[in-house]
Amino acid sequence: MHRSYRKPSNDTIAEEYVTAHIIDGAKIAEDIRNQVKREAAALKAKSGITPGLATVLVGDNPASHAYVRSKRKTTADLGLESFGYEMPKETTQAEVVALVRRLSADPKVHGILVQLPLPAHISEEAVLGEVALDKDVDGFNPINIGKLGMKNRSPTFAPCTPAGVIELLERTGTPLEGANAVVLGRSNIVGLPLSLLLLGRNATVTVCHSRTRDIAPLTRAADILVAAIGRTRFVTAHMVKPGAVVIDVGINEIADASKKSGKRLVGDVDFDAVKEVAGAITPVPGGVGPMTIAMLMRNTIRAAEIATAKCT
Amino acid sequence: MHRSYRKPSNDTIAEEYVTAHIIDGAKIAEDIRNQVKREAAALKAKSGITPGLATVLVGDNPASHAYVRSKRKTTADLGLESFGYEMPKETTQAEVVALVRRLSADPKVHGILVQLPLPAHISEEAVLGEVALDKDVDGFNPINIGKLGMKNRSPTFAPCTPAGVIELLERTGTPLEGANAVVLGRSNIVGLPLSLLLLGRNATVTVCHSRTRDIAPLTRAADILVAAIGRTRFVTAHMVKPGAVVIDVGINEIADASKKSGKRLVGDVDFDAVKEVAGAITPVPGGVGPMTIAMLMRNTIRAAEIATAKCT
Repeated sequence: MHRSYRKPSNDTIAEEYVTAHIIDGAKIAEDIRNQVKREAAALKAKSGITPGLATVLVGDNPASHAYVRSKRKTTADLGLESFGYEMPKETTQAEVVALVRRLSADPKVHGILVQLPLPAHISEEAVLGEVALDKDVDGFNPINIGKLGMKNRSPTFAPCTPAGVIELLERTGTPLEGANAVVLGRSNIVGLPLSLLLLGRNATVTVCHSRTRDIAPLTRAADILVAAIGRTRFVTAHMVKPGAVVIDVGINEIADASKKSGKRLVGDVDFDAVKEVAGAITPVPGGVGPMTIAMLMRNTIRAAEIATAKCT
Repeated sequence: MHRSYRKPSNDTIAEEYVTAHIIDGAKIAEDIRNQVKREAAALKAKSGITPGLATVLVGDNPASHAYVRSKRKTTADLGLESFGYEMPKETTQAEVVALVRRLSADPKVHGILVQLPLPAHISEEAVLGEVALDKDVDGFNPINIGKLGMKNRSPTFAPCTPAGVIELLERTGTPLEGANAVVLGRSNIVGLPLSLLLLGRNATVTVCHSRTRDIAPLTRAADILVAAIGRTRFVTAHMVKPGAVVIDVGINEIADASKKSGKRLVGDVDFDAVKEVAGAITPVPGGVGPMTIAMLMRNTIRAAEIATAKCT
């Protein structure tokens, strides 16, 4: 399956961040991080406040530890304060709730990130419900999700990965208004909030998922196709309209004997084939991945600004 | 445009509520009201509690007065207590907020309905934000909207009109799982929450709106088509897939010289033509309309049950 590339008819895909149809998420994320760094310095100079992000990690999931390490490193690199809390997997729900409640009341903490998933004996809803709305930099509070979709309402924070996808689309000049956007996946942290964000930007939005029948005719009608289902190379070239913008949120590990580690990461999209059809596409890694942390940093700066505005 | 009727291939449309493809919303609503009446009597016998619904009406919009009158009459007919509050259009926001706050604290009031729209000088968000979550029988709190769409979360109440549409679909045996559902409109009170309810029932959901381009190919793919845009006879027969279930939420007034009043109500669907194509269709009036109040009554009973459970 090898088709010739057709440039989107609107002719607006930005050259700055797109090379040979490939969207450079790493570069966009870097630009956002640099801006956050400048804003953090400015906030400190103006009000003496250093934005602070608390991370709460329960248990010993290696992937969760790697994510939190990476978030904490970026936080420090940008001149923000990082407060790290690690609790053993036996920790009770009451103990986690007590910690989050304390952080919600702590004026030095502007954002709170509870790394998911929590151990099975702890209710995610109960813990996340303790995160103060003004510190909910993950944007997972149902109030924020509800306001994301409602007219004449604005969430305090939008969830980081969906906000990162919107940023990728906007910075590459992808028209959203009136576009047919198809989102594969309806998770609380990506598919659902992203669908609401796209709707708020006047896209016509279709949400597909594991129960969707006959998915290809739907995806082939998409001007913007986002895959967030966690299934290796699920989106094949024949599912993509020539010229469509394809955003791959999937991060799946597959075996690769050619690598020292014996494995590598691939997305939900069959990248090599789809890039020949798509107008623009994000790679994995280096596409959506770096955007999530960048948007978390931006939300943390916003949280610090909200707190500062309340005190002055 | 006159096509022969094709029965839905799944062969499950219920006969009880559907005659000549026309869904009898009045009959379904009556059955629900009768059940609410029985439940109210049972609750009173068991715990001595009469479910109470407070209505708050600000200003002199004649349609709003008619709606509230109808809601209050039904409330009383079913043996529920109706508390009516009417305030002049000059009422300040602070006065409305104070009333709603008082009702939120009143143990005899189990549900609170603030009739919309409010006068322009009063913030809808500020007033609705004062409705206690356990009394939000309209289901308009962003928390309820967010939970409607999220996995592993349940709203305390679903908004009445969307919940009524789901009830119509389920009572007529319309399969939702895996169905292509297309919702026209994305309002806070119908389109958005209905889309989330359909998604939660495993339909593949597309939301169309005023910015959607080339709408007919999308609607023609719909197994379930819901129109909630307030545009007279917007949905024509060529936009409907033969056998589709068509739900018309629109209530539009048009001139009709043959009527004593000189006008009559029609929906967003060109009923006479579409009924020849659709597998089943709701009329206007007598379709979705009666369901809204029925679901409000059901939410009020649930609110009283929640309050009762808290006290025992």
